[in-house]
Amino acid sequence: MFEKQSARPACSAICASNAGRENQDRIPIDLVVDGGVALTMVEDQEPVMNSRILVSNGRIVAIGRKRDLTIPNGASYELLDATDCLVMPGLINAHAHTAMTIFRGVSDDLPLKRWLFEKIFPLEKEFLSSDTVYWGALLGCLEMISSGTTCFADGYFLQDQTAMAADAAGLRGIIAQGIIDFPAPGVPDPKENIAVGQRFIQRWKGKSELITPGLFCHSPLTCSEKTMSDAWDLSSEHHLPLQMHLSETREEVEAILSNTKKRPVDYLEGLGLLTDQLVVSHAIHLSHEEIVLLAKRGVGVVHVPESNMKLGSGVANISRMLSCGMDVGLGTDGCSSNNNLDLLCEMDSAAKLSKVFERNPANMKARETLKMATLGGASVLGLKNEIGSLEKGKMADMIVIDLKRPHLWPVYNPFSTVVYSANGSDVRDVIVNGRILMKNRNFMNLDSNEIMCRVREISRRIARFF
Amino acid sequence: MFEKQSARPACSAICASNAGRENQDRIPIDLVVDGGVALTMVEDQEPVMNSRILVSNGRIVAIGRKRDLTIPNGASYELLDATDCLVMPGLINAHAHTAMTIFRGVSDDLPLKRWLFEKIFPLEKEFLSSDTVYWGALLGCLEMISSGTTCFADGYFLQDQTAMAADAAGLRGIIAQGIIDFPAPGVPDPKENIAVGQRFIQRWKGKSELITPGLFCHSPLTCSEKTMSDAWDLSSEHHLPLQMHLSETREEVEAILSNTKKRPVDYLEGLGLLTDQLVVSHAIHLSHEEIVLLAKRGVGVVHVPESNMKLGSGVANISRMLSCGMDVGLGTDGCSSNNNLDLLCEMDSAAKLSKVFERNPANMKARETLKMATLGGASVLGLKNEIGSLEKGKMADMIVIDLKRPHLWPVYNPFSTVVYSANGSDVRDVIVNGRILMKNRNFMNLDSNEIMCRVREISRRIARFF
Repeated sequence: MFEKQSARPACSAICASNAGRENQDRIPIDLVVDGGVALTMVEDQEPVMNSRILVSNGRIVAIGRKRDLTIPNGASYELLDATDCLVMPGLINAHAHTAMTIFRGVSDDLPLKRWLFEKIFPLEKEFLSSDTVYWGALLGCLEMISSGTTCFADGYFLQDQTAMAADAAGLRGIIAQGIIDFPAPGVPDPKENIAVGQRFIQRWKGKSELITPGLFCHSPLTCSEKTMSDAWDLSSEHHLPLQMHLSETREEVEAILSNTKKRPVDYLEGLGLLTDQLVVSHAIHLSHEEIVLLAKRGVGVVHVPESNMKLGSGVANISRMLSCGMDVGLGTDGCSSNNNLDLLCEMDSAAKLSKVFERNPANMKARETLKMATLGGASVLGLKNEIGSLEKGKMADMIVIDLKRPHLWPVYNPFSTVVYSANGSDVRDVIVNGRILMKNRNFMNLDSNEIMCRVREISRRIARFF
Repeated sequence: MFEKQSARPACSAICASNAGRENQDRIPIDLVVDGGVALTMVEDQEPVMNSRILVSNGRIVAIGRKRDLTIPNGASYELLDATDCLVMPGLINAHAHTAMTIFRGVSDDLPLKRWLFEKIFPLEKEFLSSDTVYWGALLGCLEMISSGTTCFADGYFLQDQTAMAADAAGLRGIIAQGIIDFPAPGVPDPKENIAVGQRFIQRWKGKSELITPGLFCHSPLTCSEKTMSDAWDLSSEHHLPLQMHLSETREEVEAILSNTKKRPVDYLEGLGLLTDQLVVSHAIHLSHEEIVLLAKRGVGVVHVPESNMKLGSGVANISRMLSCGMDVGLGTDGCSSNNNLDLLCEMDSAAKLSKVFERNPANMKARETLKMATLGGASVLGLKNEIGSLEKGKMADMIVIDLKRPHLWPVYNPFSTVVYSANGSDVRDVIVNGRILMKNRNFMNLDSNEIMCRVREISRRIARFF
């Protein structure tokens, strides 16, 4: 398949050993992914040529070279032929506001304050309802499936709808109810914001194996100390991540400095919020000391390069964060500031932006960037033992990328191919929890026509608003 | 089609008037593109809803609303139904080294000097031949067609092969023979570089209506004063553009300053090279005075944002150039520093990079960016009367983008959709010179399997080199 084959054999730890075969024979195999080049994302592991992956009951039960791995006699399974393809962990979108697909491109190229206060906030106030959030989120799920995302972290309002959409779509979702000290869609009385979040968590915890509920504090500027502390306590009680925007703009940092006499990270430290349960997005305007403190406390960071670029907010110093040992995931943000949910394109932007920002082409290498969109996101969201790499025992969240396309050809280094050449439309098949959601670019469980028609109706109403 | 319809009617100047219908009836129509939303890129013109475009003998003979434009009785034409699609001018890649597809991803994430001197130059020395340049260029043409490029400007060596490939592919090519004061592929004796260029121009001038030959001086650092002046004279004699890399890296600027005591633009001014025939690429490290002088002389600039990012070279101040009234086109550079030829993705990068570089989200708006990839490129290459917009009398170089895809939906503003949401794989049909090259994503005249097999063979040899 590849022009530059590795001299190093695939790590035997992931191959089914002879000793393991006996057990494996007793496991009912549901799905076999055969013949692709597997980018397992296991640390230091080279691509596995002509691979075979056996899936049972939603999990990977064996992965290795095809020649080393027999399929149990008499097993009744679905076979996915991945010849001439890459097989890799599904991408993890660690920061999204998925239902915002309904606002895709409605107000671009505006100064940030006008964009937010004159367009987005009024639009949200007028148009967010159970109906619009559900169909917007479902369109977002359709888009994420079609571009290789298998898990997403979402912070928004009316989140029962987003959770229902993710569950219906078959996507893994870390769905957080938005908390803000202003009247919000579905939460007209901000004093109720924590109570609404609590009821959301109670409704969804343990309800679906795909959905992890949680809370999303909008930002340290729009949430009071008490709101953030209460949100943290509630998240902590349920062992759930707490999502938050942090230091997205210079103005926000200055306002917090002015209000609290502390930089944002020090302010959160004073509130006791800096733990590995906290997941902060953007994280652009941080001092070196703030980065070191976030790293020391194990806080997860989500890099959102395209949104940061499009809103002119600035460039997060991800290289420094990684060199401090911080967990960093990759996110797209919402479709009103990006304007797609394509993590393959986001990886390209993340790598190139970091190189030009640091004036160093060796910065943010392809493999490191792919790690950010897989294992990095899994770590940040507390799921690194379950997803983010192709390993025996992990959930079968996988994607297949068709390499026989002019813009991906030839392939010398598959990490480069994925990060620098591919886009979301190159994803051929998508599997979540062992279930095929897209096969040969056909959606298996969603009616794309219905979803697009519903969103078209919503968008016609929105277009008449201004 | 669109959620936000314009209150402004399509400019009547482009609609066939009743007075014109008589003449039109006598013209044999070859192709009708019907029902799409046309982004004509004519200055200040709004999208034309439910449009109709009539093509005869390679040119647009009428464009307007379908209801205003009848098809002559008894005409025998091909009909392309563009309902639910955008129709727009084909994209113009104003700076490429197309045959470098054979080196796609072979050496990424390296410091620039190592990348160039330890990888690219040795690879070119070892592997460039008539055979490899031809098949590499043909793969590049296949990729450009598949991502909506209808015209490209190319500077490389052994350019008969690239010209042959473009001609075979049916793409419009401004193909320039590389000039450098070192032994080069096909030009072992650098004293012969101008003579080789001259013979190339003589062979190709007037040979094919698709191909414009020309010269490409590698850079003011790798070409002597005499070489550049001779190349300029030869280009001027034939009224052809002269392509050149300019001020790509800080080191290059410093070396020219050290050698000539002048900044690069002043150095070229002293040689009399600054005219509207000169087309410079990269143009990153320019002083304000240099920008003003380039603008005054009418020199064309090609912005190459993704390559500049990936090699960590810096950010060109395109906004300032545009505000100085300069013609600016958009290019991808070669596949060893990008790593694809996708201008739809390049537009997204160009707009976002400019916004974050200037900390201004209102910078580099979507329509302005699309203009760079169409009319801007046409102007830079001296073809603005022939291509770059959909207008009566211009060549029929057009693309059709399928909007019914999750990541493009809904559409409030088609300029935003194209620039911020779309990628090359959304292009459904491609027409050059009135001829359909890709229809419903099927290549009409190229054998993609053969091209990819040939390039795979070449890449296997390359992979064994290191």
